[in-house]
Amino acid sequence: MSSTHRYTVAVIGGTGPQGKGLGYRFARHGHDIVLGSRAAEKAQTVAAEVNERLTDLPGAGTARGAANADAIAAADVVLLAVPYDGHDDLVTSLAEALAGKTVISCVNPLAFDKRGAHGQVIDAGEGSAAESAARIAPEATVVGAFHNVAAPALWGAEDFLDEDVIVVGDSVEGKQVAIDLAASVTDRPGIDGGKLRLARVLEPFTAVLISINRKYKTHSGIRVTGLDAPH
Amino acid sequence: MSSTHRYTVAVIGGTGPQGKGLGYRFARHGHDIVLGSRAAEKAQTVAAEVNERLTDLPGAGTARGAANADAIAAADVVLLAVPYDGHDDLVTSLAEALAGKTVISCVNPLAFDKRGAHGQVIDAGEGSAAESAARIAPEATVVGAFHNVAAPALWGAEDFLDEDVIVVGDSVEGKQVAIDLAASVTDRPGIDGGKLRLARVLEPFTAVLISINRKYKTHSGIRVTGLDAPH
Repeated sequence: MSSTHRYTVAVIGGTGPQGKGLGYRFARHGHDIVLGSRAAEKAQTVAAEVNERLTDLPGAGTARGAANADAIAAADVVLLAVPYDGHDDLVTSLAEALAGKTVISCVNPLAFDKRGAHGQVIDAGEGSAAESAARIAPEATVVGAFHNVAAPALWGAEDFLDEDVIVVGDSVEGKQVAIDLAASVTDRPGIDGGKLRLARVLEPFTAVLISINRKYKTHSGIRVTGLDAPH
Repeated sequence: MSSTHRYTVAVIGGTGPQGKGLGYRFARHGHDIVLGSRAAEKAQTVAAEVNERLTDLPGAGTARGAANADAIAAADVVLLAVPYDGHDDLVTSLAEALAGKTVISCVNPLAFDKRGAHGQVIDAGEGSAAESAARIAPEATVVGAFHNVAAPALWGAEDFLDEDVIVVGDSVEGKQVAIDLAASVTDRPGIDGGKLRLARVLEPFTAVLISINRKYKTHSGIRVTGLDAPH
């Protein structure tokens, strides 16, 4: 199922595996994407790679590359898919461009040591990457979503991923955009998971999935049970 | 699917909805439970309620009630199913009895305000109820599991719940006990989700499910995708 509205989505961090994979999924199911990078050329190279995979897919949208600020200017929705390392500085540098936009953060602040993956502690446990973005860019509408979808699956051949996208945010309209876009990844709308502060849970949950992947040699995801589709 | 080993499980907080519901599930599928409470009589009353529901179920185990310390003494596995409020004091009072036992914590440190449910911040973001129990009772083997199963479903009529139990812990043997017991709740083994510190994620994840329940008027749960059953 694709959403009815056709969005233009700027993907900040569009040359990384998560950004490229999600951008590809959005474009594959009819949205237009502008992959953003610090250097426009690098983004254009990756956009060409995405376009190659969109060929012969009926109903696919378009992909192009641009420098981050230009990508944002061309879009109504912005996906933040950057590493947490350097996240706050990057969002600060783009805060003006982000004003008025719906910003979807899928940033996972993780740390790794010999005991495996775990969540980085942000603001002494009272923060998350998504909440940091909302604080740094107060004129943007920030929601959190797509934290737990694995990059290899996104870039894979399957039409849709067998998992759910949980969306958190303080704006109903902002959440609806991510709920719509989720349908191009999972074949059903995203699930409203509550307020933005619950990004504190969704972000480090990825560490649990990474642990499961290592143990069971798989690409795991989560589904929410107890909901009748479509919800 | 029931596990092959028959456990005797002491349920601390056995008169609350989560403890009573999980105890009922364990006993329904062949384990023996001792519901614990501060007052033995209260535990015995609830055990009678559970036994009534076990009648005519072939292969069911037994349920009885006892004061907390007596319940622990009679069991090889202890389920901590108490409210987080007062948790540390209670575990402190039982620390000696818990020595040498496998202790499964399903404690969810949640807070509620007008914006809904969210996780309580423990040890400035570097702790969880399960880790607190492990620190207070260092001679127990503490694992975390069963955080995200809803009490009404546990007490319901369905044979099994359509969700997964994720188990975290630093002891492989300890995790295996919870993985085995999960089969009596979900009809398949629990999933090894990594180290004990990841209880910091599983505990507040319940706040996301509560938000989903309120929004969609349902009892939601989670399933892990990407795993072939049985794993």
